[in-house]
Amino acid sequence: MKYVRFRDPGGAVRRGEYESGHVHFANESYSIDLESEAGEGADAGSVSAIEVLPPCEPSKIVCIGRNYAEHADEMGNDVPDRPLLFLKPPNAIAGQGDTVTVPAGKDRIDHEAELAVVVGEQCRHVSEADAMDVVEGFTCMNDVSNRDDQRQEQNWVRGKAFDGAAPLGPVLATPDEVPDDAAVRTRVNGELRQNGSRDQLIFSIPELLAEITTYLTLEPGDVVATGTPDGVGPLEDGDEVAIEVEGVGTLEHTVRVP
Amino acid sequence: MKYVRFRDPGGAVRRGEYESGHVHFANESYSIDLESEAGEGADAGSVSAIEVLPPCEPSKIVCIGRNYAEHADEMGNDVPDRPLLFLKPPNAIAGQGDTVTVPAGKDRIDHEAELAVVVGEQCRHVSEADAMDVVEGFTCMNDVSNRDDQRQEQNWVRGKAFDGAAPLGPVLATPDEVPDDAAVRTRVNGELRQNGSRDQLIFSIPELLAEITTYLTLEPGDVVATGTPDGVGPLEDGDEVAIEVEGVGTLEHTVRVP
Repeated sequence: MKYVRFRDPGGAVRRGEYESGHVHFANESYSIDLESEAGEGADAGSVSAIEVLPPCEPSKIVCIGRNYAEHADEMGNDVPDRPLLFLKPPNAIAGQGDTVTVPAGKDRIDHEAELAVVVGEQCRHVSEADAMDVVEGFTCMNDVSNRDDQRQEQNWVRGKAFDGAAPLGPVLATPDEVPDDAAVRTRVNGELRQNGSRDQLIFSIPELLAEITTYLTLEPGDVVATGTPDGVGPLEDGDEVAIEVEGVGTLEHTVRVP
Repeated sequence: MKYVRFRDPGGAVRRGEYESGHVHFANESYSIDLESEAGEGADAGSVSAIEVLPPCEPSKIVCIGRNYAEHADEMGNDVPDRPLLFLKPPNAIAGQGDTVTVPAGKDRIDHEAELAVVVGEQCRHVSEADAMDVVEGFTCMNDVSNRDDQRQEQNWVRGKAFDGAAPLGPVLATPDEVPDDAAVRTRVNGELRQNGSRDQLIFSIPELLAEITTYLTLEPGDVVATGTPDGVGPLEDGDEVAIEVEGVGTLEHTVRVP
């Protein structure tokens, strides 16, 4: 199953089932265009009467750094011996078709395509064996990263928690929709930039959920972003970014560099 | 003015004016005991029909590290050339009289008394000159810190974002109540452990708000924790902690080390 959260023509926020270009809620069916050629334009939803929203309202996004060996290597880092955790707060969230205005005056703002896990229930001290039971589904995230500050900071707040640093969505797909070796890709202006796959994760989704919930409670709608494959690279003003997770779909947004 | 947020006998969440042991809301007045001898017991509210709640519901807590020179020194660190930022998500919040269960199996969990700023309005790109206009008031926070993990982590998530790592409250005092040299103190089981003052802050509250909002939007109820003075030290199972900010009052909580 796939779901899309949206604001209906009356202004109400709903979540409906998504199937072949339509979202169904109650007796209504709305046509939406989430299937445009990836990276050819962040115009999704433009022909629709509904506004597509991020698929959940996280109280926090727990992100994982260096969870693909080739990405750790391209950044000059070793693979960590336990998950490298960092946080993005709700102000970081952006949605399908949004224009993300990045911090001004930076030399390098990078894309990082990620498979994002949406948590379905409040949980703590989850075992690896039970971890998939607390997963509602998967979505796409761009871990937009301000390298200028990230390189200088102990905690990546200016680097990764700025407004718009977490474009998220648009589809939430249940785990059965997403293959174990699902591709995780970035295209910028249609050009393929990242092309990894879920089976390259150093720490698996159950391992991540078990480790995180050793320390903190996850709430329904919270997101765990599982890390980015190699191929990260700079974004320029006006770039059209498409983040694809195979089995989920494609998240599109534009970048503004002030 | 001082305010206390609470759950009334009917279960409704209210915020009332606090004055000499009473909270007033509409036509009601409730007696509460927030004036017990600091550190002699986390029994505040026990004689009252109301449940005292944290003074706000932050979407994020933006914390400042090494903002007192003598604390940076006791930790073996230099004073930073710009504010060291880190984040605590909502799962970290605890309230007056709560028992904070810290992560298991750690050698050292420390108290860190802090003056916490409660944001009153949504804001971004706030100038230092206008910064106090977005401040609703001040409260007390304990930046409970798990040193075992903090020392090993790039981002202080296991170290400072665990459940209960941010006891907060109970009083929100408007800025006029709090002197420029307000004392910031920790007592543990009645013994004075930290005794700093607001005028020792390296980066002032307006400087912090201007820097943070260069990168991210603060929401009403968000908290900026301004850092801790020297004298941080370990907490043991059963410790009764009192965090005092002069002009605000005292936050009391108990510690459980599993």
